[in-house]
Amino acid sequence: MLEELKRIVYEANMELPKRGLITYTWGNVSGIDRDQGLFVIKPSGVDYEELKPEDMVVMDLDGNQVEGKLRPSSDTATHLELYKAFKEIGGIVHTHSPIATAWAQAGRPLPCYGTTHADYFYGEIPCARNLTEKETRDGYEKNTGAVIIETFKDRNPMHVPAVLCKNHGPFTWGTDAANAVHNAVVLEEIARMNLMTEQLNPSVLPAPQFMQDKHFMRKHGPNAYYGQTKES
Amino acid sequence: MLEELKRIVYEANMELPKRGLITYTWGNVSGIDRDQGLFVIKPSGVDYEELKPEDMVVMDLDGNQVEGKLRPSSDTATHLELYKAFKEIGGIVHTHSPIATAWAQAGRPLPCYGTTHADYFYGEIPCARNLTEKETRDGYEKNTGAVIIETFKDRNPMHVPAVLCKNHGPFTWGTDAANAVHNAVVLEEIARMNLMTEQLNPSVLPAPQFMQDKHFMRKHGPNAYYGQTKES
Amino acid sequence: MLEELKRIVYEANMELPKRGLITYTWGNVSGIDRDQGLFVIKPSGVDYEELKPEDMVVMDLDGNQVEGKLRPSSDTATHLELYKAFKEIGGIVHTHSPIATAWAQAGRPLPCYGTTHADYFYGEIPCARNLTEKETRDGYEKNTGAVIIETFKDRNPMHVPAVLCKNHGPFTWGTDAANAVHNAVVLEEIARMNLMTEQLNPSVLPAPQFMQDKHFMRKHGPNAYYGQTKES
Amino acid sequence: MLEELKRIVYEANMELPKRGLITYTWGNVSGIDRDQGLFVIKPSGVDYEELKPEDMVVMDLDGNQVEGKLRPSSDTATHLELYKAFKEIGGIVHTHSPIATAWAQAGRPLPCYGTTHADYFYGEIPCARNLTEKETRDGYEKNTGAVIIETFKDRNPMHVPAVLCKNHGPFTWGTDAANAVHNAVVLEEIARMNLMTEQLNPSVLPAPQFMQDKHFMRKHGPNAYYGQTKES
Repeated sequence: MLEELKRIVYEANMELPKRGLITYTWGNVSGIDRDQGLFVIKPSGVDYEELKPEDMVVMDLDGNQVEGKLRPSSDTATHLELYKAFKEIGGIVHTHSPIATAWAQAGRPLPCYGTTHADYFYGEIPCARNLTEKETRDGYEKNTGAVIIETFKDRNPMHVPAVLCKNHGPFTWGTDAANAVHNAVVLEEIARMNLMTEQLNPSVLPAPQFMQDKHFMRKHGPNAYYGQTKES
Repeated sequence: MLEELKRIVYEANMELPKRGLITYTWGNVSGIDRDQGLFVIKPSGVDYEELKPEDMVVMDLDGNQVEGKLRPSSDTATHLELYKAFKEIGGIVHTHSPIATAWAQAGRPLPCYGTTHADYFYGEIPCARNLTEKETRDGYEKNTGAVIIETFKDRNPMHVPAVLCKNHGPFTWGTDAANAVHNAVVLEEIARMNLMTEQLNPSVLPAPQFMQDKHFMRKHGPNAYYGQTKES
Repeated sequence: MLEELKRIVYEANMELPKRGLITYTWGNVSGIDRDQGLFVIKPSGVDYEELKPEDMVVMDLDGNQVEGKLRPSSDTATHLELYKAFKEIGGIVHTHSPIATAWAQAGRPLPCYGTTHADYFYGEIPCARNLTEKETRDGYEKNTGAVIIETFKDRNPMHVPAVLCKNHGPFTWGTDAANAVHNAVVLEEIARMNLMTEQLNPSVLPAPQFMQDKHFMRKHGPNAYYGQTKES
Repeated sequence: MLEELKRIVYEANMELPKRGLITYTWGNVSGIDRDQGLFVIKPSGVDYEELKPEDMVVMDLDGNQVEGKLRPSSDTATHLELYKAFKEIGGIVHTHSPIATAWAQAGRPLPCYGTTHADYFYGEIPCARNLTEKETRDGYEKNTGAVIIETFKDRNPMHVPAVLCKNHGPFTWGTDAANAVHNAVVLEEIARMNLMTEQLNPSVLPAPQFMQDKHFMRKHGPNAYYGQTKES
């Protein structure tokens, strides 16, 4: 069942330690088959060195485990909420990558200080508020998703495919699982650049808006001219 | 004698350079067999590249060397004190991992700024006071253990399996030698995140208490639901 | 056509990920054959793992693609302007190497704080101004080149073979493509050193001028005595 | 001639890139045969990947090149001065390792904030003054040595086997070439720890003197008990 998607999601998960975003089992990637209404996610707490494509867990959009012997990631309910609310996304990643997590712990959105950011994310990457005590107690993972959705009520999640969850860490998404991992790698890299940018100039301002527009549109607009073909 | 424990302690020691926590010979891991009242520890000042399982030294809880041709780690008396006082621990690690050591040199406890910390350590990781001149002169390593024990007189060492020794560096422990190394790796990672967190927000506050409770209990409480089986 | 130059430019491009300056496809190297008035540049958005010497694109100095099936780098027009204005340079590199990019995002020139800098760059490395909204809209990449040239109107580009483009990132150049990459590696390294220098001493001053003169001349002056032969 | 020493000095040089202290050719190691009054040093500006034991250059203590087809390191005159003044040292290393260089560029001695430092260096590691304009012009490398010697007029170079040269970088030394490299690695590591220590606590004080005494003596005093045998 969904063997090809399981392989894709498995490989996207394995990219996390290869790219240095993961310590031990701190992360998970999922990918969705919109036609079947099923998504595939990493099992909970399994070592990356021992992970196999057939370990991937299949879930439906009501939160039922459809296939897989292992328990799904403890963050599965968050992924589920995001797939239901953000109809265009095909993959989701959660990590504790250290620098993006530091911004999340600092409770700060990531400003757009340059073209590296603007090539991927249109405007600042928001920091979602903390859950309340009640939201934490009753359905913590589901409510984590709900608070992310609330954060994007006036934003297009395809234009800003990342969020920082306060005192927790980042979630990213994308057109598929591999693209979501790509965005997780970029997020960590701009988190690194921006930390140093502020150390070098504590009163730094965001890049001019017309520059942000230019770079985002150069890669993502209808007349994109970066790369060999227009992105789908 | 204790061949299996020697192999386990050897492998836990070898994990330190593999995880980037160690420069040259700056670290040591031990593990205990509570039934026999014996613990196994790395010899002093031997290169990790030359270390072999049979080099491990066996000690009893009176501080006698029971087996092994090499001298035990110069920190052996500290391990001994901790095994005697903290009855539930099965392994101990000492490193000079650079970022945790920087917190120790700064004389600062590590605050809980997020879920990465709360998944492993319940509340702040304390910084033990300096030894006095007399404690330093008469039984330095034994007194290092005594000051750690004093630091935990109102704390459960199984809930906070780490300490920073002022102007020195970290000790961690755990259910066994491998788990103690795991905690040493996590400590260094949160030390890194927290340093950057304060750089990004000098007036940052710890994560809300109910969030700390949730994450610690999700992994360690009686109803833990992270991973494939409940932790023992 | 230009097979040797294509191989050299290919290898110079491959040096970027090897030296850790590149994430994904964020960079490009070109090299010029001054006699033929043609330059060779990396194609746009191709993975370094899949890049081959025959993928390199050949351009003339009027901006026409003379050979190559793939589109040239989206930054080609910037390279073109620099080759036309800086007659002595033989290769150009653009990266988003994280620390040099942080200085660019901070909008700050890189001061000369020591001999590592002075061995390669004579005086501070300038930060070019932002493009105006009009310059951004009409010929963004060409105008990026024009603003770099404006920045060097009173500087010798062979004495300072690097620039930081505000809110964007660094360009470096050199006697050929390999030398331009060498300068990109050195730039990132001094960007790292200088960031830490200011953290350690916020009121630090540049190195004395006579010391800067001595080191630059020791490697680059008519009586250079570093290395095995005088540099050409 | 001196084949064994050439091999030792070659291997000590090769340790520098392996330990991450070196970019390109920025460093050199030498070792001395006190009986013969000859020292062996790396040639100038040769890539580490191409370096061979037989490339090492033999010098006498009058500064004459006794053997070797290549020019010696451009810093040879500095090594020579140090061998003449510090009679007990057997090897010397110069690097531009980035964090120690940042302290040198900041013009700051490295304070002793903990036991990692005290295990190797007794008290702060000094920062030598800049050369004057005249000292720079007339015999720059020889005068670099002279200023280091001046810095140690009230210090024992065997107790503090390192110095930071202002706006330049570190020199370390030791009982032989390998030990001098060991000290260069430790210097970079404590430079890293101490930078972060000050970021975490801007008003941090050095470790108590009795603690510094204890750790230095534990490894280097007449009753040293670290490692398997007393150090010679």
